[in-house]
Amino acid sequence: MTLEGRFDGDVVIVGGDARQRFYDSRGYGYPRSGNEIALAPVEAAHLLYREDLGAVVDEPGGGERLSFRSLLASSPRPDFGVQFLVYADVRSRGLYLSPAASPWLSSGTAVPDAADFAVFPRGKGPQDGVIQYALRVVGERTTVPARSLLSAGEPAADALAVVDEESEITYFEVGVPTIEGTSATALPTDVEADLLADRVICWDPPRTLYERTFYGQPLEGRTYERPTLQCSLLEAAYLAQAGALSLSASAVIARGRDVEGERFDRRLAVYTALREAGVVPKTGYKFGADFRTYADVDDVEDLGHSELLIRVVPHDHVFEPRDLALDVRLAHGVRKRLVFALVDADGEIEWVSLERLTP
Amino acid sequence: MTLEGRFDGDVVIVGGDARQRFYDSRGYGYPRSGNEIALAPVEAAHLLYREDLGAVVDEPGGGERLSFRSLLASSPRPDFGVQFLVYADVRSRGLYLSPAASPWLSSGTAVPDAADFAVFPRGKGPQDGVIQYALRVVGERTTVPARSLLSAGEPAADALAVVDEESEITYFEVGVPTIEGTSATALPTDVEADLLADRVICWDPPRTLYERTFYGQPLEGRTYERPTLQCSLLEAAYLAQAGALSLSASAVIARGRDVEGERFDRRLAVYTALREAGVVPKTGYKFGADFRTYADVDDVEDLGHSELLIRVVPHDHVFEPRDLALDVRLAHGVRKRLVFALVDADGEIEWVSLERLTP
Repeated sequence: MTLEGRFDGDVVIVGGDARQRFYDSRGYGYPRSGNEIALAPVEAAHLLYREDLGAVVDEPGGGERLSFRSLLASSPRPDFGVQFLVYADVRSRGLYLSPAASPWLSSGTAVPDAADFAVFPRGKGPQDGVIQYALRVVGERTTVPARSLLSAGEPAADALAVVDEESEITYFEVGVPTIEGTSATALPTDVEADLLADRVICWDPPRTLYERTFYGQPLEGRTYERPTLQCSLLEAAYLAQAGALSLSASAVIARGRDVEGERFDRRLAVYTALREAGVVPKTGYKFGADFRTYADVDDVEDLGHSELLIRVVPHDHVFEPRDLALDVRLAHGVRKRLVFALVDADGEIEWVSLERLTP
Repeated sequence: MTLEGRFDGDVVIVGGDARQRFYDSRGYGYPRSGNEIALAPVEAAHLLYREDLGAVVDEPGGGERLSFRSLLASSPRPDFGVQFLVYADVRSRGLYLSPAASPWLSSGTAVPDAADFAVFPRGKGPQDGVIQYALRVVGERTTVPARSLLSAGEPAADALAVVDEESEITYFEVGVPTIEGTSATALPTDVEADLLADRVICWDPPRTLYERTFYGQPLEGRTYERPTLQCSLLEAAYLAQAGALSLSASAVIARGRDVEGERFDRRLAVYTALREAGVVPKTGYKFGADFRTYADVDDVEDLGHSELLIRVVPHDHVFEPRDLALDVRLAHGVRKRLVFALVDADGEIEWVSLERLTP
């Protein structure tokens, strides 16, 4: 016999053998009195779509019998379509999931506020008290405030599901990276340097400035006796503040602000935090990022692969999902982890990483 | 004997055996009276840097003897540093180049206005009357107006050299692509469809709508009898205009404008131009573009690789060099050609492509 559901407030109630067929064996809904279960509309839509439910009766709406098509078209939630697409996609991967809220989740199962769904480990369901990901659904045109990725220094949801305009879904894992390294830090003093339009040239610095601590690029390329170093304004500002150059740090910083405005201060705050954590930042320009980083530089002849791509954004920055997808794809393509550095007006930094995920 | 030069207006004059040593055998400068040659400051800087010139005497400046360092630091051009870096980099690759202007180039050698340097084919020089690339130099912080890439429908320069903040250089070739294909075009009429928040669902369309003409994505995934198709608003607007859907085209277009503003009209103009050229556009979202395109779709089971990534921009768009680098890197990484579609207020489109280049 094909079961039917009925709306009761925000949930859909199903009786008969629904508890056994849908809840116990396949993780839909939560038990109510007797054998009844309550379903979120997205769960009911999935059962309609699979033809496990015959219809949902909209009692508050005058008793209309809703099909999958009419339920989808009549939902008051503008994001019901993308919520359904993600729910169905996770189910199609053989995983169970539920709304990230009680009473769907057993008491004591903590989920972050920003999550839409709790995805359970393979073979587990809502009864088991353990979740694999707290998943947040992002439509192609939903903007994502940078701060919303974090909550008190932890990820506000473990994962994002971004739905594009043709309804394909990309999943991202959200993390908080540890920024630390063991790179060499000893600096020279008062190296002769000239401030050009948007770079600094260091004349005849000790070889270690390039070879051990990896500042600048030799103007001569790979063959030099003592390198003439071209430094970026960020490198030069940091070096000048440390007394390593003959230039005034304030002149370099003023030039930096001339060419890139407040962004220079944000980038210098992040550059400084990385250097002070023993990590070497170099330009990430070719990768569309502010920095690529090397955690353990002892000798530029033996650099290894840079580990992180860092993008510096103001703490009130709002991402377009398209740009998130782009940055993560680029980082993935070059085998690096993408990290956003969120910088507030005082130069305080929060770090958050995004990586591609296959549920 | 080490030669010296002297400034004469904007050029540096060198006598002695300079014509034979620098012009005839290595393509620097252009001949003046007798054995003298005239060098652009960037050429003189390169000869100073290589220690082929001992100094340049700044006669208008009171007779100061300029070294490489003082010439670099005293140039009135704020972009002299990046011009020098590109000049030196091309030379280090074993190619000759000169300023893209007469009298450096022999009369009758046409170069586009936007070019800074004429790069000669390997083994050739300024005397040979043939150039490999007309090269435009772009500093990391120089913005690039989209229209400046074209001049009367042709590339305004054959190639761009983009210098990043650590003085690394990336080269891009500029082209004008031909947009044409042979994809199937026959459409059904009056397919039942619902307009949801930002997509359209087509109920029970003929299988050919998806399988031959590649509109939409089946809600059912890969296994369906007749697919329920989710279409993007662009696909639905085009289909509705062609009478293929039961929806009003103006309602779909109004929804498109609601969700993405004028950008929707630009994207629909490009979508329409592609479809009318026999090319199938699908979303390029995962690649950070508006569309990926397939020129010859006959059956979705046998799609092949999409050829182009298309980014739609208003004709007065101004690129950041960083974003150009990012887009080209992404396209290159997925073996597609990057094409910008520049759309003016009347919906007229100019196409321009960018590809990575190794000189």
